[in-house]
Amino acid sequence: MDEFSFIRSIEQSNYRQSSLIKGAGDDAAIFRQPYQDIVTSVDTLVENVHFTRETMDPFHIGFRVLAVNISDLAAMGSTPAFYLVSICVPKHWKENELQEIYSGMKSIASQFEMDLIGGDTTSGSELVISVTIIGYVANNKARYRNTAKGEDAVFVTGTLGDAAAGLYVLKENMDMNSRSNKYLINRHRMPSPRVKFATGLAELARVTLNDISDGIASEASEIAEASGVAMHLYYESIPIHKSLLNFRQSEQRKWMLFGGEDFELIGTVPKKDWPDVQKAADKTNTPIALIGYIEENPMYAGSVFLHEKGKKRRLHKLGYNHLK
Amino acid sequence: MDEFSFIRSIEQSNYRQSSLIKGAGDDAAIFRQPYQDIVTSVDTLVENVHFTRETMDPFHIGFRVLAVNISDLAAMGSTPAFYLVSICVPKHWKENELQEIYSGMKSIASQFEMDLIGGDTTSGSELVISVTIIGYVANNKARYRNTAKGEDAVFVTGTLGDAAAGLYVLKENMDMNSRSNKYLINRHRMPSPRVKFATGLAELARVTLNDISDGIASEASEIAEASGVAMHLYYESIPIHKSLLNFRQSEQRKWMLFGGEDFELIGTVPKKDWPDVQKAADKTNTPIALIGYIEENPMYAGSVFLHEKGKKRRLHKLGYNHLK
Repeated sequence: MDEFSFIRSIEQSNYRQSSLIKGAGDDAAIFRQPYQDIVTSVDTLVENVHFTRETMDPFHIGFRVLAVNISDLAAMGSTPAFYLVSICVPKHWKENELQEIYSGMKSIASQFEMDLIGGDTTSGSELVISVTIIGYVANNKARYRNTAKGEDAVFVTGTLGDAAAGLYVLKENMDMNSRSNKYLINRHRMPSPRVKFATGLAELARVTLNDISDGIASEASEIAEASGVAMHLYYESIPIHKSLLNFRQSEQRKWMLFGGEDFELIGTVPKKDWPDVQKAADKTNTPIALIGYIEENPMYAGSVFLHEKGKKRRLHKLGYNHLK
Repeated sequence: MDEFSFIRSIEQSNYRQSSLIKGAGDDAAIFRQPYQDIVTSVDTLVENVHFTRETMDPFHIGFRVLAVNISDLAAMGSTPAFYLVSICVPKHWKENELQEIYSGMKSIASQFEMDLIGGDTTSGSELVISVTIIGYVANNKARYRNTAKGEDAVFVTGTLGDAAAGLYVLKENMDMNSRSNKYLINRHRMPSPRVKFATGLAELARVTLNDISDGIASEASEIAEASGVAMHLYYESIPIHKSLLNFRQSEQRKWMLFGGEDFELIGTVPKKDWPDVQKAADKTNTPIALIGYIEENPMYAGSVFLHEKGKKRRLHKLGYNHLK
């Protein structure tokens, strides 16, 4: 089954509620209230599909599932406020392990002043955790994927590839006590959604945002496709953490472009606003880098180009095999 | 593991968001917005735990999971508006069967003018559908379980035991073409949440509501416990559909009191408001019956008494075995 065509087949073509501003199709949905809009999204993690007990303690599973959701709201420029947890639990899970999952969620929830306001506990054959998140954004200040325009500056927060490298360290049973491996593992297990930075851009008139859950190649494509523009990225400008330099260059490259799960933000702003983006990043201690630009060219609408060592080639979201 | 003590162990003791009006512990959570409050809840159905393919077509599975959620909102006096669906799908499910699940949801969603605004599709070993619902209620008009007071009239909508009887008909492979069995099966597969009736009570100052998902014995107990009162019910007043009369009296009794899944509403109002409740029921074509009263007696706070053939005995939520 093709997941994307299936999702298209079940989406509503028209909406009935007049308060709805954004339905399915971005990082979250939005509906209008006086003064502020409500933003909501759901994400699900399944044991042995999205995580295994070998690489994640129950605490990390909880921390991560909520972090993933918070990152969706960050990508909308929204501040998270509430979450609801539906958990399907196999009998072999012990009560204290389940409580550890909730401790992980509560840990990141308290960082963001969020409240757990509901949930459902059922039994089943494998652990499935589904988290719904609800947050706020000032009216008309939500950030979408489809607003990039020609000449925009393209930026990214943090460093890319760390989470994929951290998973590799765990899977290969590498030294977990070295400082750099500890850093990478932590980036995999306990991502830091960029809420403060994203909400710090509220003054700007137009910001396009997407969070990097599936790798920058995929997220850049989503912006290019949704906005109907071409995005140009400079490989040498994509920020990398020094801990990644311990690995083979081919691995570094793969993780940076396609690794995903760093939960950093990729975005675009009009070139003139780039200094303001830098200021917002400084204010919130967010590493940020200018990594490319937007081209409005109908021939290449929806395309992403990677410039590397002076050469330019198409970057496809599905990965290396598909590079032409 | 004791589900109730586990749920208590993970609930937050304090909430951080000042807009939160009701956290976990009722049919749904509520947070404040200007003019209206937002009501939200999540419910999950797991294959072979909550339903089987033998008694439910994919369409019914979808219809029912959303109906269950809508009923939670009805029990808050709230109007549903949006839903998000997280679905975990085993490989053996076919795309057209999944689409049928969504058709079922869309069918009841369109009855209530609701929009599907988000979701997540993952793979797994068994079908798990988790639906988050979001709705509206006028400020301070949400209905809770903990507001019943002495002398209140206790009422219930519809007839009880139908859904359990319908499941029995399906499991025992009884005649599915008789009119009365068709009615019962339909009540099991396609419940009708009482939204119009519940929102039709908005003018009343104080209404206590709970939806009957686990059987009236259990839901009555929840009201009695949350409100710190005793509830008296008259067995002979509990409404029964004529289709139930085809079964043994012991079965009728079991299904009426403990069957559950009828998704009717049980509630209380000050005695003087009972005529207004009847009017609201008439206006929305909702069958309604007066079935008991509330007693404020500290000795029996949290208890439910069943009056039957002139005798009174305690009705425990866990079922017949526990009747003393």
